Amino acid sequence: MTHNILPSVTLLIDCPDQKGLVYQITSFIFHHQGNILSIDQYVDEATQWFFMRVKWDLQHSDIPPAHIAEVFDKEIAQQYQIRFKIFFSEYKPKMAIFVSKAAHCLYDLLSKVYSKDFWVDVPCIISNHEDLRTIADDFGIAFHHLPIDASNKNAQEEITLNLMKQYEVDFIVLARYMQVLSDSFVSHFPNNVINIHHSFLPAFAGAKPYHAAFERGVKIIGATGHYVTADLDEGPIIEQDVIRIEQGDSIKDFIRKGQDMEKAVLSRSVYLHLQHQTLVRNNKTVVFKA
Amino acid sequence: MTHNILPSVTLLIDCPDQKGLVYQITSFIFHHQGNILSIDQYVDEATQWFFMRVKWDLQHSDIPPAHIAEVFDKEIAQQYQIRFKIFFSEYKPKMAIFVSKAAHCLYDLLSKVYSKDFWVDVPCIISNHEDLRTIADDFGIAFHHLPIDASNKNAQEEITLNLMKQYEVDFIVLARYMQVLSDSFVSHFPNNVINIHHSFLPAFAGAKPYHAAFERGVKIIGATGHYVTADLDEGPIIEQDVIRIEQGDSIKDFIRKGQDMEKAVLSRSVYLHLQHQTLVRNNKTVVFKA
Amino acid sequence: MTHNILPSVTLLIDCPDQKGLVYQITSFIFHHQGNILSIDQYVDEATQWFFMRVKWDLQHSDIPPAHIAEVFDKEIAQQYQIRFKIFFSEYKPKMAIFVSKAAHCLYDLLSKVYSKDFWVDVPCIISNHEDLRTIADDFGIAFHHLPIDASNKNAQEEITLNLMKQYEVDFIVLARYMQVLSDSFVSHFPNNVINIHHSFLPAFAGAKPYHAAFERGVKIIGATGHYVTADLDEGPIIEQDVIRIEQGDSIKDFIRKGQDMEKAVLSRSVYLHLQHQTLVRNNKTVVFKA
Amino acid sequence: MTHNILPSVTLLIDCPDQKGLVYQITSFIFHHQGNILSIDQYVDEATQWFFMRVKWDLQHSDIPPAHIAEVFDKEIAQQYQIRFKIFFSEYKPKMAIFVSKAAHCLYDLLSKVYSKDFWVDVPCIISNHEDLRTIADDFGIAFHHLPIDASNKNAQEEITLNLMKQYEVDFIVLARYMQVLSDSFVSHFPNNVINIHHSFLPAFAGAKPYHAAFERGVKIIGATGHYVTADLDEGPIIEQDVIRIEQGDSIKDFIRKGQDMEKAVLSRSVYLHLQHQTLVRNNKTVVFKA
Repeated sequence: MTHNILPSVTLLIDCPDQKGLVYQITSFIFHHQGNILSIDQYVDEATQWFFMRVKWDLQHSDIPPAHIAEVFDKEIAQQYQIRFKIFFSEYKPKMAIFVSKAAHCLYDLLSKVYSKDFWVDVPCIISNHEDLRTIADDFGIAFHHLPIDASNKNAQEEITLNLMKQYEVDFIVLARYMQVLSDSFVSHFPNNVINIHHSFLPAFAGAKPYHAAFERGVKIIGATGHYVTADLDEGPIIEQDVIRIEQGDSIKDFIRKGQDMEKAVLSRSVYLHLQHQTLVRNNKTVVFKA
Repeated sequence: MTHNILPSVTLLIDCPDQKGLVYQITSFIFHHQGNILSIDQYVDEATQWFFMRVKWDLQHSDIPPAHIAEVFDKEIAQQYQIRFKIFFSEYKPKMAIFVSKAAHCLYDLLSKVYSKDFWVDVPCIISNHEDLRTIADDFGIAFHHLPIDASNKNAQEEITLNLMKQYEVDFIVLARYMQVLSDSFVSHFPNNVINIHHSFLPAFAGAKPYHAAFERGVKIIGATGHYVTADLDEGPIIEQDVIRIEQGDSIKDFIRKGQDMEKAVLSRSVYLHLQHQTLVRNNKTVVFKA
Repeated sequence: MTHNILPSVTLLIDCPDQKGLVYQITSFIFHHQGNILSIDQYVDEATQWFFMRVKWDLQHSDIPPAHIAEVFDKEIAQQYQIRFKIFFSEYKPKMAIFVSKAAHCLYDLLSKVYSKDFWVDVPCIISNHEDLRTIADDFGIAFHHLPIDASNKNAQEEITLNLMKQYEVDFIVLARYMQVLSDSFVSHFPNNVINIHHSFLPAFAGAKPYHAAFERGVKIIGATGHYVTADLDEGPIIEQDVIRIEQGDSIKDFIRKGQDMEKAVLSRSVYLHLQHQTLVRNNKTVVFKA
Repeated sequence: MTHNILPSVTLLIDCPDQKGLVYQITSFIFHHQGNILSIDQYVDEATQWFFMRVKWDLQHSDIPPAHIAEVFDKEIAQQYQIRFKIFFSEYKPKMAIFVSKAAHCLYDLLSKVYSKDFWVDVPCIISNHEDLRTIADDFGIAFHHLPIDASNKNAQEEITLNLMKQYEVDFIVLARYMQVLSDSFVSHFPNNVINIHHSFLPAFAGAKPYHAAFERGVKIIGATGHYVTADLDEGPIIEQDVIRIEQGDSIKDFIRKGQDMEKAVLSRSVYLHLQHQTLVRNNKTVVFKA
C-alpha cells in the first residue's frame, strides 16, 4: 500500500438496487473529469441491495475535493437513497493498537508500518500489561499502561477514550488484547475496531478457542478478523484463514501454528480497512477488490 | 488402494502409555517372523494414552493368521491392558451407501470403486427416494427404496437393518442421506457409519449449513467427514476441508462450490476407514499415516 | 449453473484503456433498457489494457437480440477500438469430451451435466481407447473410438474434426486425454480446447508430472486447467489448485490424491468457460467474477 | 519450542531397509532405560531406504550422554550400516541470519526468538546493506555490514566465514539475502544453510519470481524453504506454501501477499531444523513429525 502518486478519492456506496446505478455513478465521475482507477460492485439478491466501491483520480476534477461529498449527495445520492462514505488518499489515518502480553501480532503490524506496507500512523499503543513496552520504545511509539481489574474497568476505558481523542485516532486494532471492550466504548468507533479471534468463527467463540478445538478433535484450525460490535465474537467478519493441524499436535502446537495465521489474518484485515475495501451492512462485511 | 500383493495384517492398538510399548510390540512381530510394512504411533499427553497402528506382512509368519489375535492377546495385550483390533488384507469389506436425491457424493464413491481406488464391495444402495436408482443400475448395484415419514421410521429402519445383515455389510456411508438414523440403528455399527456434513464442524451444525454460513458472512466454507454417534453432528471427526468463497457468491454458489469439497472429504474419510487408519477414543479420531 | 429464468446476454470486452469506458458501456445498456445483472472489469496497468464482462437481462431490451452485436459495434465498439464477444443465455453450448483410460475426470464432468450444474450438452465422447465406452453408454452419449499411433495421427484427427463439425461442437474438454493435438487441429478451436495438466504449471510440464514431483521432493502438488495452444503445457491458465502431500506418500499416493484435485480444477475451468467468465489476451486468462 | 524440562536426546537415522530395525533400535533405548518421547520412521520404497527419528528422555539413562553415540554405534549402528546424527536438548544452537534490505523475514524470525518460540541464540546478523542495522540494535544483536561487489566477493566471504567461526555458528538462515553464496562457503555448512525462495519451486527459479509468475498468469503463488546446495534453487526442499492471487492483482500485490507467506514458510523451515525434524538424502528432505 504505497501512497498514491496522484491524489485520488474512494467512494463506498450502498443503497437499494435500482436500474442504472452504475451508469449514474460513472456518469457523475466522467462528467466531473474523474478517471476511474478501480471499480467494484455487488448486488445482494436476497435483500436486493447494491454495494459499490469506486476510486478515481482527482487530477482534472472540476470539483474541489472538499466539495465532492456535497456535490455527489445533491446530484446523485439523494435521488437514489444512497448511503456513502468518502476517503481521500492524501489523508494518512491514525491507528491505535491495543495489546496484552502476546507480541506476534504487534510485531507483524509494526513491521508493516516500518516497511511502509501500511499507509498509516501509529500514535500510541495501549496495554493492560507492561510486557510489550520495549517494542513500543523500539518503534518510537507512545505506550500507555492501563491495567484493568473488576473495579477500574470503566475508569480505565474513560482514560483510554480520552487518549483516543487526544491522539485523534481513526480506528483501533485489538492485536490479541485480552479484554472485552464495553459497548459504550465500542459505540464511539462503529466499524472502526478490528479484532483478531483465534478460531474459525462461528466455531469456538469465547475464551481459549485452541483448547476447545483440540478437545473437539478438529483437523483444521482457523483465525478470524472482524469488526467489534456489542456482541462478543459476533461482529462482521472481514477475513478468515485456516491451517491444517497434524495428528500428534498438542495444544502448544496449535498455539504455535495458529500465531502465524492470526497475524496474517489480522494484517490482511487491517490492510483491507486501510484501503477502504470494506463496507458493513446487516452485520456482514462486503469486501471489495481494490 | 490396490489390493496388497502379499497378505498382510494391520493392528490398531490403544492403551495407557507405558515405557517400552513400541519395543514390546515390534519385538512380538520380529520374533514371529513378521516384516513391518508401516508403523505409526502417538501419545496423547493430556490423558497419557498410547495409540498405534502397525502393519506387517504374513509371508513368513510363524503364527497362522487365524491365531494372531489370540497369540498377541496372550503374549502382549493382556500384560499392557492393550485394546486392539486386527484386519487382514485378504478380506474385502462390504460398504452400504445411503443416499437421498443428491448424486455428487454417490458418483464420486462409485467411480472410485469402479477405478479400484477403493478395495471394497458395494452390495447395496439404500435411499428414501427413487431418484438415484438409475445410477445404481448403471453400476449393477442393488437399490432399495425405503421412503421415510413420521409414521414409518422405525419400521423402515428395521427393514434396513435386516438388509445390512443379509448383505453382510461391514460399514455404512451416508452420502448426503438426509435422514437422521436412530441411536438404536447406529448402535449396531459403532464407528462404522460415516457421514459427510456440509460445514466446518462445529460451526453450522444442523440443517442448511450453507444458508447459515451465508447468513453469518463467513469467508470460507467447509465440510466434515465424521463417524455417526447418538449426538447429531457431534461424532468423532475423520477429515475436514475448506474452500474460500468470493464476494458476490450466492447461496447457490456456496452449494455448487461446496459439493466438490463434500465429495472429496467424504471419499478421503472412506479411504482412511478402509485403510484402517482411524481409531476412535473419547469422541476423537486418531488418524494414522499408512 | 441453472439456466437463467430471464433471457440475458453476456458481453466480453477488451480494448486499450480509456477514460469513460465503464460509463459509455453502461450508458449503452441503460439507454437500451437493459438491467445489469453483473459487471466486472480490470485494467492491466503494465499494458494499459481494459477488460470487462457485463451481463444484462433482455426483458425490456429495445434491440432484438440478433442485432445487439451490430448496434453495440456501431454505437460503442468502433469508437473505442473494442474487441468483443457476445453470448446469449438461451443458447445451450455443445461440449465434446476427449478421454483415454482414466475415468475420474469424465465421471466428474458427466455427473455435473447429469445434475444440471453445467448448462451444456455433451453430444459425443472421443477416445483413443475402448475402456470408457460403458460410461458413455450409461449416460447415453455417442462414443467414438479412434485409436492413434504414429502412422495414423493425421488421418484420425481429420475424422475427429469432421465429427466435431457433425456434432456442431462449440468447445472441447481434454479429460486426461493422453494425446497431443496438432496445431492444425487446435487452430479450429481457438481458446476453446480446455486441458487439465496434473501439475502446478509451469512446474513439471510434460509427461509424468507426479513422478517428477516425487523425484524433486516437493511438499505440495498441483493441477492446472488451461486453454490449449500450439505450445504444449504453455497455454493460458484458467484455474489451478494444490494439495499438500505427506511424508511417506508414494507416487501412487500422489496420483490418488491428485485425481480429486484434477477433476475439481477441470470442472471449475469448464464452469468458468461455460459462464463466459474467461477472456484470453497475451497468453493469459482474465477470469471475471460472475 | 519451549526448552524441554527433562534432558532428552534426538537421534536421526538412515540406512538400508532391513527387517527388525525398529525393534533393534527401540530395544537399545529400552534396555538402556530410556523412555521414548516420540518416534517416526519411513521407508522409501523406490530405494529401499529406512529413515527414523526417535527422541527419548535421559532421566534414567544408564549411559552418560557423552557416550551414547559411541555405545549406539557399537551396539547397533555398525551392524546395520546405520548413518546417524545425535542432538541433545540441553544444547542451545547458534543461528546467524543473513539479510539484505527486506525486513519482513528478519522481523518474523527475531520476534520468534524474542517470544521464545525458537530455542536458539542469534549471535550475529550479516548484511550487504546498512538498512536493517537498527533492527539488530533493537534486539541487541551484533550487525556486520559486508557490502559485496564483483571485486570483493571472495574476500567478504572469507571474513564472513571467520565471523561464523568466531560466533560458533551452527547454521545460517538466509532471510531474503540477495546474494548467492559460493559453493566453497556453503560446503562449510552442509544442510545447515536455509534459504527462502519466493516461488513454488521448481517453478520460477532464479531472479524475480513474482514478476515471472505475473507474466505467466498463474492463479496461485508460492514460497519454498530449502537447504542451500551448490545448485542454486535446487537444494532439498524443507517446506512450501502457496497463496491464491486474485484477478487484478499487480506485481506489487503479488509481492505484498507473498511476503506473509515467505516469512511463515521460512519460520516453519527454521523450526523444523531446530527440532531436528529434517534429514537430507539424495537431495530430498525427509520431514519427521515431532
